[in-house]
Amino acid sequence: MDNLNLGQHISRRYNEELEDVRTRVLAMGGLVEQQLQKAMDSLESLDAGIAQQVIDNDLQVNAMEVAIDEECNTILARRQPAASDLRLITAVIKTITDLERIGDEAERIARMAGELVGETRVVKLFTQIRHLGQHARTMLRGALDAFAHLDTEKAVEIWNEDRKIDREYEALLRELMTYMMQDTDSIPCVLKTVFAARAIERIGDRASNICEYVIYLVKGKDVRHTGLLKESLSDED
Amino acid sequence: MDNLNLGQHISRRYNEELEDVRTRVLAMGGLVEQQLQKAMDSLESLDAGIAQQVIDNDLQVNAMEVAIDEECNTILARRQPAASDLRLITAVIKTITDLERIGDEAERIARMAGELVGETRVVKLFTQIRHLGQHARTMLRGALDAFAHLDTEKAVEIWNEDRKIDREYEALLRELMTYMMQDTDSIPCVLKTVFAARAIERIGDRASNICEYVIYLVKGKDVRHTGLLKESLSDED
Repeated sequence: MDNLNLGQHISRRYNEELEDVRTRVLAMGGLVEQQLQKAMDSLESLDAGIAQQVIDNDLQVNAMEVAIDEECNTILARRQPAASDLRLITAVIKTITDLERIGDEAERIARMAGELVGETRVVKLFTQIRHLGQHARTMLRGALDAFAHLDTEKAVEIWNEDRKIDREYEALLRELMTYMMQDTDSIPCVLKTVFAARAIERIGDRASNICEYVIYLVKGKDVRHTGLLKESLSDED
Repeated sequence: MDNLNLGQHISRRYNEELEDVRTRVLAMGGLVEQQLQKAMDSLESLDAGIAQQVIDNDLQVNAMEVAIDEECNTILARRQPAASDLRLITAVIKTITDLERIGDEAERIARMAGELVGETRVVKLFTQIRHLGQHARTMLRGALDAFAHLDTEKAVEIWNEDRKIDREYEALLRELMTYMMQDTDSIPCVLKTVFAARAIERIGDRASNICEYVIYLVKGKDVRHTGLLKESLSDED
């Protein structure tokens, strides 16, 4: 937070409002991370109860998004933020959209798990999926850390992880296709596993979106779609 | 626009700025719609040239998103919009994110088409995919129309279409699975077709997101995740 003026306003109440938004984003992020973890657990253990918990808790994730969004709109209307405060608010609006969609992906994974209950023959496919899920969870946690500490180096590091997840996903997909070709009866089940894997891969994409917002927030530069993430940092640092 | 105060500001320049943002969103929407159409064409004709055009043009979609986002931030900082003006800006920020992601889905469809060139045996699967694509395109156009005319009735109508697309997608998926089971050599190709179908289904989701923003903009109510879209309208109308 060193090079931003967050927490340095004349109005103490305004400071508190901005701090409160940040805290709530991190709380939402924590819940979404937990949802992802439980979704992966439900897939590995094919436990319908855990899967149902994830599906039920998604309502809470959605409610958090709507509440934070409302708080941002109130701050925009009342405080008319400028410069880095304004970037904080717009970064938050975008971040919570991605967090909510990560929550949706976790729910999707849980639904697939629920549908796979009893299908023991796909269990052996879950080692690689577990690995992919852990990787996505590390990315999500890293993106939230980068947001919490406004740490652009961390943001770049996590952003770069996304390509690795993409490669892991492609490798897994090839394996799953081979499995389908060898055992055609397994196709409906394996396809569900493919969709779960794809949901995890998308979580990586969304975690890297959050990293881009962190960089925008700190540096005031929009690095999306530029492929210049690294350069945009080294220009200034 | 009857019940909003857009276009009724003392500053003519401010009016023009808000109008300009709206126009640019619609221009971006037009380009994304065209991208979707071309992506579907590339899939139906398995034409690598058209697929490549879609991939190339995605850069333009991305650039439009960044430019409109920047314009919104400038208006937020300089004009400190309130009430419906503020809702317009936040609705635009969210809408262009979904438009950009629809552009990404179109690119994804085109990439699948590019990879399927020469695979004539999947051509017969394309009738239903074409239908799904047309449906998604109608939804996107409808969502953009609702945005252009701030038409909440249209927004609700289009929003309701999404469930139909989901059902069509599920039916198509079952058909594709059967095809994979009957002809295992086709699995890699059919799986690409599955991914293209899924991308189309996602476009429906995103078009319905845009409808929710239109309702928020006009009514000042956040109807996301509530399942109360219809009721929230009939309460007031």
